[in-house]
Amino acid sequence: MTDPLVIFTPSGKRGRFPVGTPVLTAARQLGVDLDSVCGGRGICSKCQVSPGYGSFPKHGVTVERDALSEWNSVEERYKSKRGMKEGRRLGCQATVQKDVVIDVPAESQVHKQVVRKEATARTIAMDPATRLYFVEVEEPDMHEPSGDMERLVKALESQWNTGPVTASLPVLRKLQPTLRKGNWQVTVALHQPHEEQPATLVDLWPGLYEQGLYGLAIDLGSTTIAAHLCDLSDGRILGSAGIMNPQIRFGEDLMSRVSYVMMNPGGDTEMTDAVRAAINDLAVEIASQSAVDPRAVVETVIVCNPVMHHLLLGIDPVELGQAPFALATSSALNLEAKDLDLHSLNPAAKAYILPCIAGHVGADCAAVALSEEPGKQPELTLIVDVGTNAELLLGDTRRVLACSSPTGPAFEGAQISSGQRAAPGAIEKITIDPATKEPRFRVIGCDLWSDEPGFHEATKGTGITGICGSGIIEAVAEMRMAGLVDPSGLIGSAEQCGTERMIPEGRTHAYVIHDATAEGGPKITVTQGDIRAIQLAKSALYAGARLLMDEFGADRVERMVLAGAFGAHISPKHAMVLGMIPDAPLSHVRSAGNAAGTGARIALLNRASRREIEATVGKITKVETAIAPRFQEHFVNANALPHATDPFPELAQIVTLPEVSFNTNGDGADGGRRRRRRG
Amino acid sequence: MTDPLVIFTPSGKRGRFPVGTPVLTAARQLGVDLDSVCGGRGICSKCQVSPGYGSFPKHGVTVERDALSEWNSVEERYKSKRGMKEGRRLGCQATVQKDVVIDVPAESQVHKQVVRKEATARTIAMDPATRLYFVEVEEPDMHEPSGDMERLVKALESQWNTGPVTASLPVLRKLQPTLRKGNWQVTVALHQPHEEQPATLVDLWPGLYEQGLYGLAIDLGSTTIAAHLCDLSDGRILGSAGIMNPQIRFGEDLMSRVSYVMMNPGGDTEMTDAVRAAINDLAVEIASQSAVDPRAVVETVIVCNPVMHHLLLGIDPVELGQAPFALATSSALNLEAKDLDLHSLNPAAKAYILPCIAGHVGADCAAVALSEEPGKQPELTLIVDVGTNAELLLGDTRRVLACSSPTGPAFEGAQISSGQRAAPGAIEKITIDPATKEPRFRVIGCDLWSDEPGFHEATKGTGITGICGSGIIEAVAEMRMAGLVDPSGLIGSAEQCGTERMIPEGRTHAYVIHDATAEGGPKITVTQGDIRAIQLAKSALYAGARLLMDEFGADRVERMVLAGAFGAHISPKHAMVLGMIPDAPLSHVRSAGNAAGTGARIALLNRASRREIEATVGKITKVETAIAPRFQEHFVNANALPHATDPFPELAQIVTLPEVSFNTNGDGADGGRRRRRRG
Repeated sequence: MTDPLVIFTPSGKRGRFPVGTPVLTAARQLGVDLDSVCGGRGICSKCQVSPGYGSFPKHGVTVERDALSEWNSVEERYKSKRGMKEGRRLGCQATVQKDVVIDVPAESQVHKQVVRKEATARTIAMDPATRLYFVEVEEPDMHEPSGDMERLVKALESQWNTGPVTASLPVLRKLQPTLRKGNWQVTVALHQPHEEQPATLVDLWPGLYEQGLYGLAIDLGSTTIAAHLCDLSDGRILGSAGIMNPQIRFGEDLMSRVSYVMMNPGGDTEMTDAVRAAINDLAVEIASQSAVDPRAVVETVIVCNPVMHHLLLGIDPVELGQAPFALATSSALNLEAKDLDLHSLNPAAKAYILPCIAGHVGADCAAVALSEEPGKQPELTLIVDVGTNAELLLGDTRRVLACSSPTGPAFEGAQISSGQRAAPGAIEKITIDPATKEPRFRVIGCDLWSDEPGFHEATKGTGITGICGSGIIEAVAEMRMAGLVDPSGLIGSAEQCGTERMIPEGRTHAYVIHDATAEGGPKITVTQGDIRAIQLAKSALYAGARLLMDEFGADRVERMVLAGAFGAHISPKHAMVLGMIPDAPLSHVRSAGNAAGTGARIALLNRASRREIEATVGKITKVETAIAPRFQEHFVNANALPHATDPFPELAQIVTLPEVSFNTNGDGADGGRRRRRRG
Repeated sequence: MTDPLVIFTPSGKRGRFPVGTPVLTAARQLGVDLDSVCGGRGICSKCQVSPGYGSFPKHGVTVERDALSEWNSVEERYKSKRGMKEGRRLGCQATVQKDVVIDVPAESQVHKQVVRKEATARTIAMDPATRLYFVEVEEPDMHEPSGDMERLVKALESQWNTGPVTASLPVLRKLQPTLRKGNWQVTVALHQPHEEQPATLVDLWPGLYEQGLYGLAIDLGSTTIAAHLCDLSDGRILGSAGIMNPQIRFGEDLMSRVSYVMMNPGGDTEMTDAVRAAINDLAVEIASQSAVDPRAVVETVIVCNPVMHHLLLGIDPVELGQAPFALATSSALNLEAKDLDLHSLNPAAKAYILPCIAGHVGADCAAVALSEEPGKQPELTLIVDVGTNAELLLGDTRRVLACSSPTGPAFEGAQISSGQRAAPGAIEKITIDPATKEPRFRVIGCDLWSDEPGFHEATKGTGITGICGSGIIEAVAEMRMAGLVDPSGLIGSAEQCGTERMIPEGRTHAYVIHDATAEGGPKITVTQGDIRAIQLAKSALYAGARLLMDEFGADRVERMVLAGAFGAHISPKHAMVLGMIPDAPLSHVRSAGNAAGTGARIALLNRASRREIEATVGKITKVETAIAPRFQEHFVNANALPHATDPFPELAQIVTLPEVSFNTNGDGADGGRRRRRRG
């Protein structure tokens, strides 16, 4: 009998451990990021984990209900005293019995995710769909009988010119006591998606209500969920927070989640429940941080990619996993927040979901279009939004094209040997001296470079733990510029490069950026496999951009906007060295931060913008990469660093790439030609 | 220690029984109508009862959880084999332990209620709000990406000209599999309350759906709930059924229910839950009788009085119990049936509730106005709808007035010594020979008069059990015409009347209609108290009619319509002898049957009629009886049989009322002056 297999998510780290090993011990031995303060005494509860049960086709295991030891008295005591979410176990108490998949929730990770989608400061004209109105209502008169609601509507019409107003039963239920408590003075929140539509009575308070109304702009990504809490009176962002998308345990990328549904009937419902619960948690967390009552949150706007869109709505996403990639619905949706089980918000809160552009180009891309307005640009503008997938918009005042490129998660540091998500301790910037081949770098959470005094002290808390997405792009580009990698992507040996930092790695080589193994820390390297993963990702991105340019009939772009968690931190020069993006004057490349989140905020704060983006999306021409022969062609041709076929004159003005070639035995040179599944 | 008190509802019968007495035994000893076929062996389940727990201020008892013996193995076996509703007990198994209130559900009564609200045949122009459309939808094309919903809407628009269509998430969820199953042919049910509003996608089926769509017209009365199941394609009534309103256990009349809420916080929720559950049960029953899948019921229209309206909607009705009788809302309501917990219908079924006219004049009266159209009559028309309350409409093409009169339940046979609801065995028609003073009568369920051959045989099954509402009116009027009662309402003695059928009853007398005590049956009499109750009720009704006539400036009406369960069975001549209704040529008095139910059907089958009645209700002038000094005056003056102050010339042409006076000692003569609480 082999020992049980233990797989941790979201890290994917796995190993076999003897029956009876505590989960916390297994996590520590595998280097899984699982917190513990009390040293395993079942007191601190920091080591909470969520074991998964059932079939995990992605991991090739089926987890039985008794995969962990039985719930014990230490856990029971903790739960009864302090409460613990359903399904959670204490990692220090539960021991491994059989093969098991264990999710480490974000709050149990020492290196909690720093979601980089911070709100971009931007002026938005305030025209929220939900507003407060204070009115004095006529008292009832039995000689002129009319309902309290009808007299309220009459008062609103005469004092505020609001037109017809409807109310749901739960709000109607509050009406009579509230009017009497306020002595016929009342403040009401009316929701009116646009002026021609009847308003809805969302809530009401006796007398003058002064606590304000709030809205949540939510950017629901495959990996992270980020939200901004905004004051609906002035648009101020009162708080921002992000959490991991709990669906990660069903599949790291979107297509694995679609596969999960195909293999597990009802799996879509599990994922729907998980993401809705996470949004509720996030809403409560952000409201509490901002000292706002979640019941005062009366609106939410959600942007997301098509698979997340369907999973959030409770629609089986299976059609999105196969041609012709048909959406159940592409229109914008005006929903009740309670239809999405967002019960932490006001009971009558509304949810607006931006329209999707196509089966691979979602409401998040529509939000980028709302924020960046490619159709209003006089110069031909390419907007690249890289999350786990890349969405691209190309256009100017004449027309706008959109497509999605299956870049995969490499740009987010996943599938990279020393890769990690953007979190304290991750290398995010790097330079390599072309002469000495020595690296210097910066890590998230510290403003010093690694060769500056005090760096060692300053990073003691976080350590130097891996490379995040922007770091790996810079590392590969710097290796190319330093002559450690040839145009085909092959890494040279210590001999070929003249530095002991090149070490053998199987039949290929790797470059050592940082080695802390002497102190029991990690060795951070860039391997040949990492270069191949980046080559695949950048080829997909570049091919998408080129496909749009072909469709537009343009051979260069005049302006480029890098958006998304990744785009905000990427160095345009390094991206161009990699050949990720088409050539353009560096001064014309701009970072837009979290443009999708900004688009969500615009839609939250300005109702007219909703109609605007609904109309805009109808005019965007969608280009499908999956079936375009030209996409394949561009993809193959884009493998080199930079591309073999496309000249990069702008880049040549700032960087001279060394002419090296390590391709002596042909090994690994065709790695980039493997076409991966869409993701 | 006294024995526990056992109170049965809805009959109100009560008695004390030793601890350990089976509920079935107690019911039999009290003459409570509780079925049993198997003789108490726990097999037939006919004797199911619903014990109530908590405080019953109306009955002056508090029922503890252990008021009955514990659930036993016989009940458990029955429940597990055949199922039994939550809270039910078997009357043959449960024994009395403490004071208890026990409801006998309609289905456990031998004499099941015959709800007399049968649908009146009537031609209604078909224009239902929900219709079926068969369409062929374009298949998705990844070069022209659009959602399946958007292509469906496009197909509907081009093939049926339907305009914008929205869908709720549960319906959207079905869209993709249904379209594919039907090979892009689909039948959809669209709900469009009127042409200018966007349609809602209610349901859809692959290919051609041929099972039809159905609607329920519900007349929700204080005492009974009646419904008609209609085919929405041709208006045919497929089935009708009625059940008792389960709220009766919280109070027989509306004001006792309002009081129940005042005394029992949360009592409104109990009543809301009870009535919604009853409507669900009724829907399932009627659908099953008609062999219709309840899921094919996509619409319901509900009419009811204001207190029932609020209790159905889940709104605390407390404001309706006190001046100025303010409704929470008076407008018509377009709801989702699921908002009313009507989960037995189609999940996306709609519910339309007609507008209320005033705090005492409800949606049921609006439905009568829709059915009888007083505002379209060239002649001044009085419409009287008598349920537990009486609603009156008076008008012609110039204007329409409405009011409500607190008649109380006497006209329905309640609060009458031998009274009972309209059910088999109840005396419904009676004549008294003016010479012999001998009665002859007919009972419900038998077409023969009591003096015809075969009557005894024909009524063996039901027995002769009491007098229903129409019966008591005829009995009192006939007693007046036969000289057994004087104009003040006093009953004569055997000596004064010359018949041994007059028997002493306390300090007054009673008239024996039927005496089966020799065979162990009942003695059915009309007592002085009964005459007083009828005098109070008829005075209230008449005073309401007179008040409207005063307001209109009319001293007589040209046309009269008697509506409602009661109106349909009442003899206009007898009503006029009583002075219940103003004087009018008998040929101008018409019975309209269940006009409220007819109004509900019209609104169900013709959406334009909804807008019509909404506009009409806004133009009806409401007259409040509770505060009109003239109402009090009319009420007092209307006490005599017929009235002392108003001449009845039309009546004089067909009936000569004997000049008798039994008022020798003044006893009871002022009984009619007591003003009762509104009900």
